[in-house]
Amino acid sequence: MSKVKVASFGMSVDGFSAGPRQSLDDPLGVGGKSLMAWFFPTRTFQQMHGNGGGEIGIDDDFAARGFANVGAWILGRNMFGPIRGPWPDDSWKGWWGDEPPYRVPVFVLTHHARDSLVMRGGTTFNFVTDGIHAALDAAKKAAGDRDVRIGGGADTVRQYLRAGLVDEVHLALSPTLLGQGEALLAGIDLTGLGFKCTEHATSLHVMHVVLSK
Amino acid sequence: MSKVKVASFGMSVDGFSAGPRQSLDDPLGVGGKSLMAWFFPTRTFQQMHGNGGGEIGIDDDFAARGFANVGAWILGRNMFGPIRGPWPDDSWKGWWGDEPPYRVPVFVLTHHARDSLVMRGGTTFNFVTDGIHAALDAAKKAAGDRDVRIGGGADTVRQYLRAGLVDEVHLALSPTLLGQGEALLAGIDLTGLGFKCTEHATSLHVMHVVLSK
Repeated sequence: MSKVKVASFGMSVDGFSAGPRQSLDDPLGVGGKSLMAWFFPTRTFQQMHGNGGGEIGIDDDFAARGFANVGAWILGRNMFGPIRGPWPDDSWKGWWGDEPPYRVPVFVLTHHARDSLVMRGGTTFNFVTDGIHAALDAAKKAAGDRDVRIGGGADTVRQYLRAGLVDEVHLALSPTLLGQGEALLAGIDLTGLGFKCTEHATSLHVMHVVLSK
Repeated sequence: MSKVKVASFGMSVDGFSAGPRQSLDDPLGVGGKSLMAWFFPTRTFQQMHGNGGGEIGIDDDFAARGFANVGAWILGRNMFGPIRGPWPDDSWKGWWGDEPPYRVPVFVLTHHARDSLVMRGGTTFNFVTDGIHAALDAAKKAAGDRDVRIGGGADTVRQYLRAGLVDEVHLALSPTLLGQGEALLAGIDLTGLGFKCTEHATSLHVMHVVLSK
């Protein structure tokens, strides 16, 4: 059955999924990149970026699962880019170059309307200005019987969790401290929302946990 | 060198070190016992309670390290027992029976004075009414060149962390959700306090991380 999922989402020991002060140089905030240190060497990531090789094993299994059967993505504005407020022009097309790794329709939450962007390789960025429910409806329609993946950032994941719209969350708990940043789960009663930890596996790098209803 | 440490402290994926509603039946709050599921089977725990056997391996290594070289403990009032407010009488002597597993002086933080309790096996419970610094001074004096272990609960650990008085924290990150309870690290900037994650190891049950300065 089609589901709404969060996958390969890094979290530090102190509960942050991004560091403070996101910028062009630090898309995940200061120190945030360390949360994805398990992900970058995987075969899945390497192939996504046109490279050969890459590591296989537990980390790659989870990385690959996150991309399997995904028919549409939802991204928050900050995950799409560092620009805040109205779009000054159409030049910013995401962090990922001309051929983003999504290869399906992507719905970007924003308060500022913008025309869709058709990218190389199957990715279309669609800008949704009427809220998280509207974005999810559009994403589900685009995905058909495949899954919708909430790509992030942390605040977007929190909004969808709080609204009870997420079926499954895969977190990679990283042995790092960020000290400050965006707390992913603070103040969200996941048990009250019906989640349990249904799976866990540990690699040399992280502990993977799957939370589902 | 003598240090102040927190050890074998369980934390859920959602950041809680105890569940809600601590009681005589649930010393760690509702669901909190699941955080220590890695600890109970270890040889260290089994021997502490006079049993033979028990599992060895990563979990036991960390459990044993937590008890090594400890010359004194500090416990919060709630970790000592479920009674709140003035002591009604002297009948409550901790959760651990006549022969508690500490076997060294233990300093219990409380607002309500009480005479020391000399227990079997070397444990003395001393009740400290003049705050965390006074308790630490007394514990350091009692420990000599051995370490002081902050036993918990979560609020006591938070107070000592915030005051910058802790040198090392070993957490066991458990693949469980509690939903509510006592958040261990929320609002504490560990990086700002000088901590780094200096060690990690994963067992089938948990990911162990050591945070130190």
